[in-house]
Amino acid sequence: MAAKAGRPRDDSIDQRALAAATELLVEHGFEGTNMQSVAKRSGLHVSALYRRWPSRVELIEDAIFPGLARPAVTPTGDLTIDLRRFVRAYAAALGSSAARAAIPGLLAHHQSTGGRPSGRYLHTSARPQFNDILDAAPAGSVAPEIDPDDAFDVLFGALLARSIVPNVAARDRPLERTVELLVRMLHPVRSDLPR
Amino acid sequence: MAAKAGRPRDDSIDQRALAAATELLVEHGFEGTNMQSVAKRSGLHVSALYRRWPSRVELIEDAIFPGLARPAVTPTGDLTIDLRRFVRAYAAALGSSAARAAIPGLLAHHQSTGGRPSGRYLHTSARPQFNDILDAAPAGSVAPEIDPDDAFDVLFGALLARSIVPNVAARDRPLERTVELLVRMLHPVRSDLPR
Repeated sequence: MAAKAGRPRDDSIDQRALAAATELLVEHGFEGTNMQSVAKRSGLHVSALYRRWPSRVELIEDAIFPGLARPAVTPTGDLTIDLRRFVRAYAAALGSSAARAAIPGLLAHHQSTGGRPSGRYLHTSARPQFNDILDAAPAGSVAPEIDPDDAFDVLFGALLARSIVPNVAARDRPLERTVELLVRMLHPVRSDLPR
Repeated sequence: MAAKAGRPRDDSIDQRALAAATELLVEHGFEGTNMQSVAKRSGLHVSALYRRWPSRVELIEDAIFPGLARPAVTPTGDLTIDLRRFVRAYAAALGSSAARAAIPGLLAHHQSTGGRPSGRYLHTSARPQFNDILDAAPAGSVAPEIDPDDAFDVLFGALLARSIVPNVAARDRPLERTVELLVRMLHPVRSDLPR
């Protein structure tokens, strides 16, 4: 959220703006979702939006990524079960109608402005939860040489492609296949195999 | 290429148009690359471009994906070596300045037009080569239950994220780490491990 420290905040205004942005993304896409259209849809003043978000980009990121900020997955210690729940929650967030409408436009925006990391929700926020799951896995189920951040990047890419690349989305493969490949990737490798 | 069957074709015109599109993508991005700007840069008539490509989208796809259509990787039968060469060639194609400028815009375009698979170069063209590498791998190095198309989707997503997602690109991890994770994913799994 973009509130200044110490500033009184009316959460209902935030919620109205975020709900309006979500609706507009689904109905009119990234290009049709801007400060003016959100103000009109929500009945808020444009100035109230600018007090909360520097531009439509941050507003759109807040609208589509609440689910990524806190996917409610508490590790059980069973690696496959935990990864399955995490992947489902994360894929649902990345694959929502609003997220699918917004993400290519957000990526194009970041590309056109130099591709600087936004420091906000895109990609970073679920990384600690993924690390928690690996930490809770039983000894021996995750190879010690695995870098959790590298593994997260691979998972993130796979889910991103499912969400926004037409040829991958059209294959519409069960998420369970992605979970299985991920578990395979994390497991210790047999040392007796041909390379 | 978009030439009609039996139509005489001047390849030098194609090359001039594709080179101009590539330059414009790097200099002015996806939004600055259209039939008019390509015609002006290349000295060709707009009508000559429309005879070859239905719109700027197909022209841009042809301009950025020649490397994806034929990455020159002939399998040696050593899985790690072959995957390393394939991943490097594919990542270079997806990560070129022109491709990085074009891909988010292409994805946004496909999203706004209903997300239908383009049937052209984006994503599909390297899949057969990946399959060839798995086919050439020694017995026992690729688990029989692996679906090569699922594995390709995971690899594609990982390389796409490296190319166009700011927070992944900024980590700038060695490609070798992606190759290692991919090889791990393909290997037969030990049956004696906790899940």
